Amino acid sequence: MVLIAGAARAEDGYALWMRYVPMAPAQAVEARARLRELVAPEATPTQRAARDELLRGLEGLLGRAPRLSSGPIGEGTLLLGTPASSRWIATLGDEVRGLGPEGYLLRQTNIDGKETLVVAGGGDIGVLYGVFHLLRLLQTGASLDVLEIREAPRVKLRLLNHWDDLDGHVERGYAGASLWDWHKLPDWRDPRYTDYARANASLGINGTVLNNVNANALSLTPMYLEKAAALADVFRPYGIRVYLSARFSAPIEIGGLDSADPLDPRVRRWWRDKAREIHELIPDFGGFLVKANSEGQPGPQDYGRSHADGANLLADALADYGGVVMWRAFVYSHEVADDRAKQAHAEFIHQDGRFRPNVLLQVKNGPIDFQPREPFHPLFGAMPKTPLMMEFQITKEYLGFATHLVYLGTLYEETLRADTHARGAGSTVARVVDGSLHGSALTGMAGVANVGADRNWSGSHFDQANWYAFGRLAWNPDQSARDIARDWAAMTFSSDPAVVRPVVEMMMASREAAVDYMTPLGLHHLMARGHHYGPGPWVDGGPRADWTSVYYHRADRDGIGFDRSVRGSNAVAQYMPPVARVFGDVDRVPEPLLLWFHHVRWDHRMQSGRSLWDEMVHRYSRGVARVGDMRATWEGLRGRVDDARHREVAAFLRIQQREAQWWRDASLAYFQSINGLPLPAGEAPPPRPLAYYQSLRFPYAPGDGR
Amino acid sequence: MVLIAGAARAEDGYALWMRYVPMAPAQAVEARARLRELVAPEATPTQRAARDELLRGLEGLLGRAPRLSSGPIGEGTLLLGTPASSRWIATLGDEVRGLGPEGYLLRQTNIDGKETLVVAGGGDIGVLYGVFHLLRLLQTGASLDVLEIREAPRVKLRLLNHWDDLDGHVERGYAGASLWDWHKLPDWRDPRYTDYARANASLGINGTVLNNVNANALSLTPMYLEKAAALADVFRPYGIRVYLSARFSAPIEIGGLDSADPLDPRVRRWWRDKAREIHELIPDFGGFLVKANSEGQPGPQDYGRSHADGANLLADALADYGGVVMWRAFVYSHEVADDRAKQAHAEFIHQDGRFRPNVLLQVKNGPIDFQPREPFHPLFGAMPKTPLMMEFQITKEYLGFATHLVYLGTLYEETLRADTHARGAGSTVARVVDGSLHGSALTGMAGVANVGADRNWSGSHFDQANWYAFGRLAWNPDQSARDIARDWAAMTFSSDPAVVRPVVEMMMASREAAVDYMTPLGLHHLMARGHHYGPGPWVDGGPRADWTSVYYHRADRDGIGFDRSVRGSNAVAQYMPPVARVFGDVDRVPEPLLLWFHHVRWDHRMQSGRSLWDEMVHRYSRGVARVGDMRATWEGLRGRVDDARHREVAAFLRIQQREAQWWRDASLAYFQSINGLPLPAGEAPPPRPLAYYQSLRFPYAPGDGR
Repeated sequence: MVLIAGAARAEDGYALWMRYVPMAPAQAVEARARLRELVAPEATPTQRAARDELLRGLEGLLGRAPRLSSGPIGEGTLLLGTPASSRWIATLGDEVRGLGPEGYLLRQTNIDGKETLVVAGGGDIGVLYGVFHLLRLLQTGASLDVLEIREAPRVKLRLLNHWDDLDGHVERGYAGASLWDWHKLPDWRDPRYTDYARANASLGINGTVLNNVNANALSLTPMYLEKAAALADVFRPYGIRVYLSARFSAPIEIGGLDSADPLDPRVRRWWRDKAREIHELIPDFGGFLVKANSEGQPGPQDYGRSHADGANLLADALADYGGVVMWRAFVYSHEVADDRAKQAHAEFIHQDGRFRPNVLLQVKNGPIDFQPREPFHPLFGAMPKTPLMMEFQITKEYLGFATHLVYLGTLYEETLRADTHARGAGSTVARVVDGSLHGSALTGMAGVANVGADRNWSGSHFDQANWYAFGRLAWNPDQSARDIARDWAAMTFSSDPAVVRPVVEMMMASREAAVDYMTPLGLHHLMARGHHYGPGPWVDGGPRADWTSVYYHRADRDGIGFDRSVRGSNAVAQYMPPVARVFGDVDRVPEPLLLWFHHVRWDHRMQSGRSLWDEMVHRYSRGVARVGDMRATWEGLRGRVDDARHREVAAFLRIQQREAQWWRDASLAYFQSINGLPLPAGEAPPPRPLAYYQSLRFPYAPGDGR
Repeated sequence: MVLIAGAARAEDGYALWMRYVPMAPAQAVEARARLRELVAPEATPTQRAARDELLRGLEGLLGRAPRLSSGPIGEGTLLLGTPASSRWIATLGDEVRGLGPEGYLLRQTNIDGKETLVVAGGGDIGVLYGVFHLLRLLQTGASLDVLEIREAPRVKLRLLNHWDDLDGHVERGYAGASLWDWHKLPDWRDPRYTDYARANASLGINGTVLNNVNANALSLTPMYLEKAAALADVFRPYGIRVYLSARFSAPIEIGGLDSADPLDPRVRRWWRDKAREIHELIPDFGGFLVKANSEGQPGPQDYGRSHADGANLLADALADYGGVVMWRAFVYSHEVADDRAKQAHAEFIHQDGRFRPNVLLQVKNGPIDFQPREPFHPLFGAMPKTPLMMEFQITKEYLGFATHLVYLGTLYEETLRADTHARGAGSTVARVVDGSLHGSALTGMAGVANVGADRNWSGSHFDQANWYAFGRLAWNPDQSARDIARDWAAMTFSSDPAVVRPVVEMMMASREAAVDYMTPLGLHHLMARGHHYGPGPWVDGGPRADWTSVYYHRADRDGIGFDRSVRGSNAVAQYMPPVARVFGDVDRVPEPLLLWFHHVRWDHRMQSGRSLWDEMVHRYSRGVARVGDMRATWEGLRGRVDDARHREVAAFLRIQQREAQWWRDASLAYFQSINGLPLPAGEAPPPRPLAYYQSLRFPYAPGDGR
């Protein structure tokens, strides 16, 4: 009976980390005593959103919501507000000054002689953020006893980038169709849009780019702007601004002009008019994201102009409305024969200082393209006069799509903690991104979204953690990936340490496992062509060399790896000298990046004492074994995690293990065909010949670009 | 508080008509007394599915499920089983003989001196159907007092046809992406597949064609067959067989042959081998659906062979395994200049008797293509030696997509009740389809599915009713559309007559409203090109005349309509003489079909006394007004229907009203441009010039073919 009833209300992941299930009884008793009454303003949509979230959360966590009161303050009151919205908060004086519009304070205090829990914000949205923080404390089993939390975001623009097309396809999306039901917008505002906004606000994400960077000019036509405006209306109470990817050639395609030259006065006028039109529909429109002169997209270079000319054109159009331009640094040329890893740096380094103040340069974490492991991008730290915005990929284009459990918190952390040495030791990427290194006021971090219409939002339960981790790190780039994993696991599965501990261990080891079974030791870009599903180290030929695998691994009879040292492409020279010296020296480069920077003989001696080849085989096998470990750990959680989600994760881990094995076998079969070396003793040979792996075709793998 | 908690568990439509919400207290008391104990076999997956559905349903409806018992029979027992699975059922003797494997009996009886409610099936699946029937009675507030129900399906194959592509796109789908997550199959069997099977079984639907009739040969490769097999495993306990659309040229595309000639022995061997391969993976594989030599699809005519040759090729391959071929009659030639409405009949009529016994000819309800109103297809009744399978469209390609409330039960009923006169009066289409007219043992009805990954399955709450009505009519083609609407409304919204009555009235009037605002008086095929979204009576030119609107309406200065009388294309001659005489006579043809069969002067006097033109304008306006009526009715249900669904339906009705107005205005602006006639007094002129309506573009309207 119970089982059947349970099945009807199975955990399906829709609630994300906002499940608000009952707390442990003892803690609930304590919390109820502190949360008897709620005094909260309700004059604005954001105020009501904060109040409603709190009521929803507390009703779930505590079994009942606090009594709503308009004062006076009684014993055990939870008090929400800003100095402007609450006369009691205003009395807190210095404590609540300088919080900033998004900052908040969470503390126990005494008001009118009564024990009061205060969630004070610098602005309404700060209160909402504080409410989510308070709920998180309750969800993770933290005590409210000695609360003294003062938070403000370290990064100004904390954005999702949706690579969503107007027909509902999501480029590199593995979570179903686009969330945006363009056809039914603006009339039908799916309640799911509100839940999307809640989820983002719970992390402090404050903006969203609705459409693909491979942009369609139609997104800027009145019909689609009205649809975007409806979404903006839904998101606004949650502090989320709408942005759009702008196609550079839009003045031609939808404007009737014969040019998109950024210096053409007609073009400038067209964009100014367009910006005004957008702002009339979306008064708090955030601005444009632009992919220009990259992978076939139009751009200012089509007219002999620079990227700065292009970005400034749009920046000028938006300036009066407080909008920004996020200009992507992901450019590499078909014509330039030079190492692709060097091209973005070469293209932009000389334009530092030429951008308008409302332009950010949006730089991917590494110099190639969201590989399982890359060194940090050499532009970080190299453009002191330009705000550099981080672009992480949340969707797992190169990391096993939705079915591989790969926690990206550690990948993000690794990049953010990398030291650029731009201003001496300690010049971390995080300090570039948060603006503290070069004193930049405009700062940002973008994550390429992994959400879609799938019921669980992200295509898998564990991929929700990557959305979560991105948001938390955008708020504070110095947070620990492990702490974030701990919070997420507790909120998503159970705050029981017997669940949290093993789940966090799985997560923390997962990305290294994927690196091992896909691209160990600094290998990169070895996936199948086009859809990027599965291994393809043999990929060669086609429209451009730098879209092949052989371009990157350069394996031959003698050795493997891309020589980016001074003897090779000298990409290392794009880093600050202390970094360049380490990366450029085959004896000092961290082994995880060895083959990124060096071409090394197969018999090169590794720290383990093994030859490079033996070490590579060892790592491929180790990656597969680690997936086996994850499966065993997850098996141990049967009964502690609800059946529905346990079954789904178990099924996905089974897929992951088979595919990890496939990566290993196909890769080893290929590299053996190049080097002719035997496998070390005890290593199972690939069960099929290389030709088999090369013959596999997946024309409908999800998320393909087009 | 309550409101917020309610929102968290909002009715989102996922449960369909199987909501199992608490019954009225008085009825629940009575029902509980009759359903104290459950005695049910549980040896097979289908037996367990029946038992579990019952427990789930009763727990919801009655607040608690009956006690499970293995006997003896106590007072107030609900007894499930077949003569083979239950010794008590076996004692019922004659009563349960001859039910057939899918038939069932529902009655109160006395067993071992105890009042017992029996759900007896001829086979396990009959029991499951009976359980759904019993639950329906409880959901609709029927009494269990005088239960004496004996049911068996009138039609053997009751199938959904999914026009789902391998990339997740659904051709003519308006409910999100495909339900089938091909990429994660066969490993991950989404629980949703089980709910899909439950929903179908609740209606008696016993088969599903997984892939688009515009078929991809890859569906027949081992990789995809394994995925289809996983779905078949999920569906099997619910009595649902899997079928596949077969691409006729598959022997070339995936078989490595240079021909698909049905008389080529290599081709015959290839299909035999393929059938064996499929049956090894899917032992109860249902068979193939084929669209051949139609709209660019390959077929036997490519080799100078007949449709019968093609169908028999596949039928022979499947015969040993009990599989069938459903050969679509939807063919019309690019080369043939003749009236498209005549072509299917002309093509197939002479092949009657030439098909193998396991071939069905699948015929659309009307001779063109799922228009808001068509006369019945002239093939019905015309091929006594060939099983004719009905093909209805559930998805609303031509009826406003997901946002228009158009109940199709009345459309299906109209076709099924149409009298072909093939064997004298009373030779209804229903009697052709159920085989009783010509004594056909193999019978079938197919519905082009309207389900997708949208949470509510069908893209709108009211479109669920069309899935429901199709299933109920496939079981028994003589059921009343109104009765079906009543059941659906009670189960879906509330059994309160104050809800059921107005909802049923909305539904019953809705299709006529759409006919009025889109294509009144027998007009047809006036939609926009390609995606079919919105009006396009001006559509002309392009690749083929019979894909334009002007081909069908033939409006000129003097009149409008397609002359299919003996003076015109003489399509009427394809009907039996009594029908032909009526359709062919401008004075006797029913006015709703007037312009389908006749070209009529604008000043033609209608039964209303109005001129044709005035009547047409009147009907366009009336259709719009009726949508207004629906909105008003729905407004009156606020508070009686849950907020979440009320809001969504209200938003969709708003869209429908605006689009109905658009249809009217655009159509009238166009026809006025042809006939130069003024609007009747009191009729508002279109607010925009014709050029405006003609300029509208919707390149990403959902569901487009490709």
